Amino acid sequence: MNNSLSQVLRRIKPLDSKAIEAAKARQNELTKPKGSLGQLEELSIKIAGIKGKIIRGFEHKAIVTMAADHGVVEEGVTLYPQEVTKQMVFNFLNGGAGINVLARFVGARVVVVDMGVVEGFEPHPNLVCKMIDFGTRNMTKGPAMTRQQALDAIEAGIAVVEAEIAKGLDIIGIGDMGIGNTTASSAIAVAITGEPAEKVTGRGEGLDDKQLEHKVKVVQKALGINKPDSRDPIDVLSKVGGFEIGGLAGVILGTAAHRIPVVIDGFISGAAALIATGLAPRLKDYLIAAHLSAESGHKVILQHIGLTPLLSLDMRLGEGTGAALGIVIVEAAVKTLAEMATFAEAGVSEAQKEAE
Amino acid sequence: MNNSLSQVLRRIKPLDSKAIEAAKARQNELTKPKGSLGQLEELSIKIAGIKGKIIRGFEHKAIVTMAADHGVVEEGVTLYPQEVTKQMVFNFLNGGAGINVLARFVGARVVVVDMGVVEGFEPHPNLVCKMIDFGTRNMTKGPAMTRQQALDAIEAGIAVVEAEIAKGLDIIGIGDMGIGNTTASSAIAVAITGEPAEKVTGRGEGLDDKQLEHKVKVVQKALGINKPDSRDPIDVLSKVGGFEIGGLAGVILGTAAHRIPVVIDGFISGAAALIATGLAPRLKDYLIAAHLSAESGHKVILQHIGLTPLLSLDMRLGEGTGAALGIVIVEAAVKTLAEMATFAEAGVSEAQKEAE
Repeated sequence: MNNSLSQVLRRIKPLDSKAIEAAKARQNELTKPKGSLGQLEELSIKIAGIKGKIIRGFEHKAIVTMAADHGVVEEGVTLYPQEVTKQMVFNFLNGGAGINVLARFVGARVVVVDMGVVEGFEPHPNLVCKMIDFGTRNMTKGPAMTRQQALDAIEAGIAVVEAEIAKGLDIIGIGDMGIGNTTASSAIAVAITGEPAEKVTGRGEGLDDKQLEHKVKVVQKALGINKPDSRDPIDVLSKVGGFEIGGLAGVILGTAAHRIPVVIDGFISGAAALIATGLAPRLKDYLIAAHLSAESGHKVILQHIGLTPLLSLDMRLGEGTGAALGIVIVEAAVKTLAEMATFAEAGVSEAQKEAE
Repeated sequence: MNNSLSQVLRRIKPLDSKAIEAAKARQNELTKPKGSLGQLEELSIKIAGIKGKIIRGFEHKAIVTMAADHGVVEEGVTLYPQEVTKQMVFNFLNGGAGINVLARFVGARVVVVDMGVVEGFEPHPNLVCKMIDFGTRNMTKGPAMTRQQALDAIEAGIAVVEAEIAKGLDIIGIGDMGIGNTTASSAIAVAITGEPAEKVTGRGEGLDDKQLEHKVKVVQKALGINKPDSRDPIDVLSKVGGFEIGGLAGVILGTAAHRIPVVIDGFISGAAALIATGLAPRLKDYLIAAHLSAESGHKVILQHIGLTPLLSLDMRLGEGTGAALGIVIVEAAVKTLAEMATFAEAGVSEAQKEAE
């Protein structure tokens, strides 16, 4: 295992129990019936535990959107041609994609990272180049990448987040772009959760029944040929993963090591979270599941990790679009804990012990 | 029926079908798989239909929070003493309540309205006084209010929203405060939906099983004594409603008449929406259900009206807190439609007819 990854794994600590108790106590003093803000209360308590104190909001927010290509597209598992990955990276850089709009709306900067798009890119001032290779290899014919490439992808993700922390970072959302990456994520989900391919493989950008059936067979073939070791997340990533998925796993690990909350997006971010929590189970406490994707396997992933999604809006775009909306809900939660008046401050009577 | 109410009912028109078609067409040209923004796409299309065009965002947002007291608290259906209604109004005016925090966060002004709090208020520059009476009467002993008071409450709500429109208003959220108002709302829901009291009556601020059983009996008693006519929403409101519920019904009606979207909050706002849509069924198209409340009967109300909630965060505070979060989601939807690049603009390839 590489040096910075093993350091990061050691740095992921339990949440701050004193800050959690202080946040719980304050929630119960605020002018509302106990528990009446539901998941907002739980979120505000979790954030206090991550940060080690009750905070007032998030000054620096970022969405890291990582792109890469997938050799498995040779098997005909997608509706869009592979060049769309690269075209969408330019769309991100030009500010025209869904993630640009939603990140602007929630006040987050978008960090666009090339983890391995076919053809590569000319240098661009707003593109972070961490390219591992010109797309993965076709996983139905052998491993998607080498073990060293899998480790490099994770290390690259750690490096990306450390550069962002240097600029100021209070919360991060993660997202993906990569034609073919729901196929890789399905294979990761099967390998790690042990659920059948039929259950976790979804329609991606809109496959019909016959196309979905074919995609399931491709996932099964990739797993049969590679036989990834479910107890070794690096092995799973290298055999049936993707460079952007490895990079996002690194972002998750690096962010948690710095006690910063990570808002995960949909199915591909979920696959990255499976890899990351496989390496550091304690990490789960730093994760917030923004939403339940319309991609059918996402629910399986979230249940395996043990996360409850905040939103359920039938979204399945990826890019970090769900994560951007999730950040708004988390910030709303933090604000209620920090800014609401207590019963004592407002002179409001508390609940009576028994109904009259 | 009063004059301004009948005028308002006549002014509620169908959505603009040309604007809806234009919004649908644009959604299908944006750089994303068709339908991949899920409910955000549907919302953006609905807003275009309400406004008559594709808009870029909401400049003027308001939450109208209406407060009133309920005579039925004599029956011991609540955990908090009745003076909390008035105390919370002061909390709203001082900016310390949940709705103040969340409205600030989403950039909405809070309009606090006294519809009939026991004891009343001294004049206050930020309190809109529309008091109908010093709280309703105990509905287990006769009608909660007169038919004229019910009409006056609705007219007052219309007047409140018209004053806000004069200041600038692009979207409105509604909320409530009133110790005892889940009991009144339960009775309205039973009267209009025809579902049994056991199904729609919930725990309010946190009743235990025995207290809940008593509350159900109180709802049944009020309905048995008053026998509201389910086909006459004004009769239902006057016999088992509340002044803030009537006021909110008026806000909904007045807002829709001006082609402005209305984001409804939880159970009490839902009861107001039952009254309003009973008077003007077409109104439904102007409503957005922000969230599914933890109050058990809310689902019954939303299903009866035919609305799908955006959020499900186990919230049950009222005040408009869910509506504030709902406004964020609606604005996010509007922004994606207005600001995302099209395939042609971004030079991104569209989906192929068949998977390769």
